[in-house]
Amino acid sequence: MRATFMYGAGDVRVEEVPDPTIVQPTDALVRITLACVCGSDLHPYHSMPTGEEGTPMGHEFIGLVEELGSEVTGLKVGDLVISPFAFSDNTCEFCREGFHTACKHGGWYGAGGVGGAQAEMIRVPQASGTLVPIPGDVDEKLLPSLLALSDVYLTGYHAAHMGNVGPGKTVTVIGDGAVGLSAVLASKQMGADKIILMGRHVDRTGLGRRFGATDVVAERGDEGIAKVLELTGGEGSHVVLEAVGHMPAYEQAYGVVRPGGVISRVGVPQYEDAPVGFGSLFGKNVTLNGGPAPVRAYIEAAIPQVLSGEIDPGRVFDSETTLDDVAEAYRLMDSRTALKVLVRP
Amino acid sequence: MRATFMYGAGDVRVEEVPDPTIVQPTDALVRITLACVCGSDLHPYHSMPTGEEGTPMGHEFIGLVEELGSEVTGLKVGDLVISPFAFSDNTCEFCREGFHTACKHGGWYGAGGVGGAQAEMIRVPQASGTLVPIPGDVDEKLLPSLLALSDVYLTGYHAAHMGNVGPGKTVTVIGDGAVGLSAVLASKQMGADKIILMGRHVDRTGLGRRFGATDVVAERGDEGIAKVLELTGGEGSHVVLEAVGHMPAYEQAYGVVRPGGVISRVGVPQYEDAPVGFGSLFGKNVTLNGGPAPVRAYIEAAIPQVLSGEIDPGRVFDSETTLDDVAEAYRLMDSRTALKVLVRP
Repeated sequence: MRATFMYGAGDVRVEEVPDPTIVQPTDALVRITLACVCGSDLHPYHSMPTGEEGTPMGHEFIGLVEELGSEVTGLKVGDLVISPFAFSDNTCEFCREGFHTACKHGGWYGAGGVGGAQAEMIRVPQASGTLVPIPGDVDEKLLPSLLALSDVYLTGYHAAHMGNVGPGKTVTVIGDGAVGLSAVLASKQMGADKIILMGRHVDRTGLGRRFGATDVVAERGDEGIAKVLELTGGEGSHVVLEAVGHMPAYEQAYGVVRPGGVISRVGVPQYEDAPVGFGSLFGKNVTLNGGPAPVRAYIEAAIPQVLSGEIDPGRVFDSETTLDDVAEAYRLMDSRTALKVLVRP
Repeated sequence: MRATFMYGAGDVRVEEVPDPTIVQPTDALVRITLACVCGSDLHPYHSMPTGEEGTPMGHEFIGLVEELGSEVTGLKVGDLVISPFAFSDNTCEFCREGFHTACKHGGWYGAGGVGGAQAEMIRVPQASGTLVPIPGDVDEKLLPSLLALSDVYLTGYHAAHMGNVGPGKTVTVIGDGAVGLSAVLASKQMGADKIILMGRHVDRTGLGRRFGATDVVAERGDEGIAKVLELTGGEGSHVVLEAVGHMPAYEQAYGVVRPGGVISRVGVPQYEDAPVGFGSLFGKNVTLNGGPAPVRAYIEAAIPQVLSGEIDPGRVFDSETTLDDVAEAYRLMDSRTALKVLVRP
């Protein structure tokens, strides 16, 4: 089959490799219907040292079950399934507490002998716990929105969930990438009163408004902070959803959060140390949380929302390539020509 | 009257100064019955640069109302009152949300023209919102426990409250100072299943056990972390209450917290930057919160618990001095000869 590998910064290649096979009796093989490129794929695209061995790429997909290990239950060959971007047994203590990305038997696609999803086929470990079948016949137009449940929408949802978004709350979303826009949509779903989107790409913030943003702040840094404080009567935002991962976004977050408020992060931090002392978080009793989204915890509730048309998170996909052209998908996203690119094997 | 001032590290003096007077119509004057020295007073005691002007010291007290400004309501001359360590109007939006230490009209004793509480008398701004009268005649033996509601016990309580301590939870308390021991007592009150106290002063951890600690870990650093992990089946602690404020305590906190868990800090951070990235908080979806305790939010519920004997937080006071000997109180606490020292004017 064909599969995508990264060999270093900017070096993405599609190669012919052997089809995956069942390794553990808990594995499934899935033939991929739709995959895509993630904002987080751009981090290695910028910084990966050049190597002789390629890293398998892609961790978001929907597809058809092709083969099942002997111990897999709850799935049958031919099922259309969604996979979270991380696999998990869905039964260990951490999974039961809703933190599937910490599963004791879980892991990540593209690492430890498991392939990537920008490919024709993939081996899914812990298939019973990981894959969620989509019931009934599905209108093809809904497939991108179902694919969005694999990562991007439910990562935005995780931010809003950890931020305890709800009625009466003002939410500021930092970042107009696909995750930030998804966080806007999730905040709207959860009933936030006021949703301020910090971003400066007009086409993206336009989609943000359609998703539910009530205000857009294009300014950054101190100017952006001043603007959000102005929009919140000088008090700051109850909840800040940080969907970027770079230090200036973190600094904006503690600048705009109100005393007693929450900063919920889902942008993968590109830093280890950050201000958390009296002058940033402690003095204001600010809560900092978030992390890799336990998407698996949220998929089942989101599927009927997509099927009924209540949410349309697939609108973040504004471009499409074939698997052979996946390198072009990276280029489009890296240059911000595209927001998020579907990849069709 | 006599009042305590600090002129630099290690330099604490009691001086004769004019009695405070009503400045704002919302002020009250309180004659102090009992005050004490706080663990946080030791930070300037170690590091304050020597100056010509002394800083008024002390922010914990109970006392008798001596005089009321014309706009003060809900209090009368002669009332025995508890003051939180920060004053607040108890009516602004932040107070109503339970974060009185961020009050729009609030502030701190010993700053901005307001005196300290290691004194014979004190001016209390925003008296209607700040002071809580203690109903009925009070047994003198209960006064230390009522004083503990001014800061130390309810600071420990705030840690447990923000950490969402409750039945089914394992709590690790870092620090065997008076706030750490108070956090143990609060966690016990809130129904925690297992309370692990990290501390190495046997007399203190002994009181911790009487307050409800189920386990004591004397080791620190990696060894201490390994011990807590062992006590939690390798999974880590649902809640970590950090009552020290130094970096090694913070490092222990993220070492022992379980995925999806909470680190709640009430030790005033003696650092601004700290690890919060993938390797510390983000990867495990850990929540970091806490800050200056909004003690005012919790005092009313705690008074009947003290009066009924349900809690006895005053047991953290293991020593006593007169106001004239307050410098000795600092020395006793600094040398760890005393856990926490009562000061009787």
